[in-house]
Amino acid sequence: MSAIVNSDVIERKMGQNSIIQPLLTDLYQITMAYAYWKSGKIECQAVFDLFFRKSPFCGEFTIFAGLEECLKFIEKFSYSESDIEYIRQILPKTIEDEFFQYLGTLTAKDISVYAINEGTVVFPRVPLLRIEGPLIVAQLLETTLLTLVNYASLMATNAARYRMAAGNLKLFEFGLRRAQGPDGGLSASKYAYIGGFDGTSNVLAGKLFNIPVKGTHAHAYITSFNSIGELNHHFISAKGGGEPQNFLKMSLTWREKIYDIFNVVLSEVNDGELAAFISFAVAFPDGFMALIDTYDVKKSGLVNFCAVALALNDLGYRALGVRLDSGDLAYLSLVARDYFKKIAVKYDVPHFAELMVMASNDINEETILSLNDQGHSIDSFGIGTHLVTCQKQPALGCVYKMVEINQHPRIKLSHDVEKVTIPGKKNAYRLYSETGFALIDLLQRSVEEPPKINEKVLCRHPFQESKRAFVIPSRVESLLNLYWHNGVITQPLPNLQQIRENVMNCLKILRPDIKRTLNPTPYKVSVSDTLYQFLHRLWLENAPIGELS
Amino acid sequence: MSAIVNSDVIERKMGQNSIIQPLLTDLYQITMAYAYWKSGKIECQAVFDLFFRKSPFCGEFTIFAGLEECLKFIEKFSYSESDIEYIRQILPKTIEDEFFQYLGTLTAKDISVYAINEGTVVFPRVPLLRIEGPLIVAQLLETTLLTLVNYASLMATNAARYRMAAGNLKLFEFGLRRAQGPDGGLSASKYAYIGGFDGTSNVLAGKLFNIPVKGTHAHAYITSFNSIGELNHHFISAKGGGEPQNFLKMSLTWREKIYDIFNVVLSEVNDGELAAFISFAVAFPDGFMALIDTYDVKKSGLVNFCAVALALNDLGYRALGVRLDSGDLAYLSLVARDYFKKIAVKYDVPHFAELMVMASNDINEETILSLNDQGHSIDSFGIGTHLVTCQKQPALGCVYKMVEINQHPRIKLSHDVEKVTIPGKKNAYRLYSETGFALIDLLQRSVEEPPKINEKVLCRHPFQESKRAFVIPSRVESLLNLYWHNGVITQPLPNLQQIRENVMNCLKILRPDIKRTLNPTPYKVSVSDTLYQFLHRLWLENAPIGELS
Repeated sequence: MSAIVNSDVIERKMGQNSIIQPLLTDLYQITMAYAYWKSGKIECQAVFDLFFRKSPFCGEFTIFAGLEECLKFIEKFSYSESDIEYIRQILPKTIEDEFFQYLGTLTAKDISVYAINEGTVVFPRVPLLRIEGPLIVAQLLETTLLTLVNYASLMATNAARYRMAAGNLKLFEFGLRRAQGPDGGLSASKYAYIGGFDGTSNVLAGKLFNIPVKGTHAHAYITSFNSIGELNHHFISAKGGGEPQNFLKMSLTWREKIYDIFNVVLSEVNDGELAAFISFAVAFPDGFMALIDTYDVKKSGLVNFCAVALALNDLGYRALGVRLDSGDLAYLSLVARDYFKKIAVKYDVPHFAELMVMASNDINEETILSLNDQGHSIDSFGIGTHLVTCQKQPALGCVYKMVEINQHPRIKLSHDVEKVTIPGKKNAYRLYSETGFALIDLLQRSVEEPPKINEKVLCRHPFQESKRAFVIPSRVESLLNLYWHNGVITQPLPNLQQIRENVMNCLKILRPDIKRTLNPTPYKVSVSDTLYQFLHRLWLENAPIGELS
Repeated sequence: MSAIVNSDVIERKMGQNSIIQPLLTDLYQITMAYAYWKSGKIECQAVFDLFFRKSPFCGEFTIFAGLEECLKFIEKFSYSESDIEYIRQILPKTIEDEFFQYLGTLTAKDISVYAINEGTVVFPRVPLLRIEGPLIVAQLLETTLLTLVNYASLMATNAARYRMAAGNLKLFEFGLRRAQGPDGGLSASKYAYIGGFDGTSNVLAGKLFNIPVKGTHAHAYITSFNSIGELNHHFISAKGGGEPQNFLKMSLTWREKIYDIFNVVLSEVNDGELAAFISFAVAFPDGFMALIDTYDVKKSGLVNFCAVALALNDLGYRALGVRLDSGDLAYLSLVARDYFKKIAVKYDVPHFAELMVMASNDINEETILSLNDQGHSIDSFGIGTHLVTCQKQPALGCVYKMVEINQHPRIKLSHDVEKVTIPGKKNAYRLYSETGFALIDLLQRSVEEPPKINEKVLCRHPFQESKRAFVIPSRVESLLNLYWHNGVITQPLPNLQQIRENVMNCLKILRPDIKRTLNPTPYKVSVSDTLYQFLHRLWLENAPIGELS
């Protein structure tokens, strides 16, 4: 399946992105812009960090995603005439006209963006984006950047957790109907794929992002057939060609033969279901996959499926497998596998033992882990609601904080120590052990020399004085790369497949105890001694001295 | 604020909707379409019901929303050439070419849509949409309709619950940055407004949907000022006009005067914060609202705010109020109110007693109810994450089930009685008591006469034989209205304000015990005796008879 790039697709892609525009923001960004402008801060230069404070889903890692969309937004950042006309309407009449003229000239060409590569595993307090440039523009970017990073990263992280739970089994995203809006559904398909899913049911996502698309039929298809008499077309030629054969008769003959294996009687096996399966096999003889739980999996669905699959086999076709959408999935998958193996032996059709069993009813990360514990014979999962809405934690709390203005550091204090920001322009490094695992992330002031391979570096907890460690890295990775400068994107952007590979590779450099579901070990994020001193000096300078009375 | 309708806005609106297109669906809808087509079911006529099985958020009511978007989707339903080219690529090579030609001709003009009015309060199992027409087209609409109804209704319901909790206080949606994708954010703003919010921070939502937009400044604005020396412009003229006055000096003078009231000393009050407030007041002298928790609410934020507000008062302006974004909101709001009242009396500025206190930190429905219990002096809430992601339950489980095909009823059986569908084409009525409260919803077969005012009607529980009641309605409302027929929208569609009023009016006709947060009483949804008999006859006919051995 190759990407289609023609004008219609491009037009629709742009359509999809057309709400990602400067007005997709909170009004206070614009009122602040006016107040900054009015107080003469046009020339002010600022540095903002975009980061989060806690990994989602009670986990200890996050996948950073959404960078490409951020850069595309920054690239075309400018207010249209109608935008400015609208802003003029909603702001007080006292706003000076020159401000609107000023807004009309704004672009992001004087902004520089340093970012972590998309698809990288990231940790609390490390800047995912460092935005430098004119205060007013940098501030105006805040809300949209947060919107673009928050859900993308949450979704990619969620998908990566499902991927780890599922091991090598296939995972498909089936969540469009339950997503938070049509674009929520599209983003879910895209970032689930990045996080490690194998495909989606969402056709538009397939078309726009070149993601594999998957699907068979719904219960409605099965119930739309009430009897064998409703079958209008039931002839197929063998795979090699030749006269069309009476496929209904072949299927009925097989069904008679296998009643014994399933220990069922005629009245228990639904004929509408058989008619539906036959019609679907006639349409897709080489891709026959059947939903088998509309009536009764053991007494009807499996029997009808096997009859049709055996008839297909006689004509040289191979059925794909079955889908279970209700009931005890572990048990039913084992039952199905057991019958498939019996038939494989009895009728000498070895591929029957390997037929796919897909499960798709209300699956979440815990369900997969619990199925693993119980033992099952499922090959692939179709996952909807829990995946796309991130039910366990539906928002990632990324924030965007000013850390420097006109080369003066800024700190945001808080009674809650976890919310104190780390001031100043910073670089971020990942230090690796000899075994290839990531040991620690280290934040430094941007004026410091990067840590060196095989040289001892002191890594300090940002807030707890006594927590310190010397680290001798075998490899040092600089995390923040320049992605936008002088009005252009300065790096080639990876495609979805490459980002997806980055996710898979990053997860390998994390120790298993950091990735586990239950009580994972926190990964350490540290500051250099210089940054520690700098942070705490500023903290003291800015905290008021109270008086007890 | 009036709606702007010019070509740019229209173009962007269309851009926003451009992902709502036939490919925004699950692939299995298209594979089913081919299998139906291949088995000669082009002429089949079907009826589908779109409904949900349980109200969200542990509640007993739901607000139906998303209808206008469904109708707009149906109106322009058709596959483009590039859509068909893409489908051809992802389906097996054996698909007949005539099918793609057939797809290219499809529209929804032979479909009829009956729907409940948007913004109506609705209950489990009552069809929100009844879709009639060619089986293949009706089936192809499924996923997109579910996507458009599910999140819209969930969000409107969530907002209505916040509205009930907040009584007459103002509610603003501030969730864009934490929403599930940019369009999730836009939908949240729109449906929060429908559900009873007073406005949003989302500027694009304001522009596209004509919703009031609200916003002041962020902590970054405050921390961008470090000292009074940074104030470049600090002169304002009085409201009536005249020479610009030294507003810094006026504010400092007031601050000196009021230190005593607040029992603070100079070193505790932050000068950067004062500078930020002054610059903001200079920009918005008639709309001054201050975020007062950057440093210390009691010892700095309130003191600086009151100084600036009193100086504004001297010039004939009235400050709006303060926003609290951290700490104990109930307590701090009472403290603020107390100081405002003291100042109102001491300096004879009565409007000070009425200054607005807005709260905006991680608010959810329970927070509001708990604040109400504790006592507070908050006038308005800004609500983000919990509202827009519907954290308590991030998906509504609407389903789309075939209930009739070629005038034969269809039933979907399940081991779980709650999942058995109510077969056949149905109408839905709401029966009202003399007092104006809704008593019960009643589903009937479409061939039955509607219930009549002041005539006894037997209402039965759909599944529990002994649960029956006679009802004598004082008013009967037919819930399903024809909205789409012969290729046109057949009713004038209400605007957002009208839908919002419908929500408010509908909530009034619900008894308080149905709306309460804790252990609400379920509202009854019943079937007529005729439908009850019909349902149970079909059930028996379709359920296989097992054999015990």
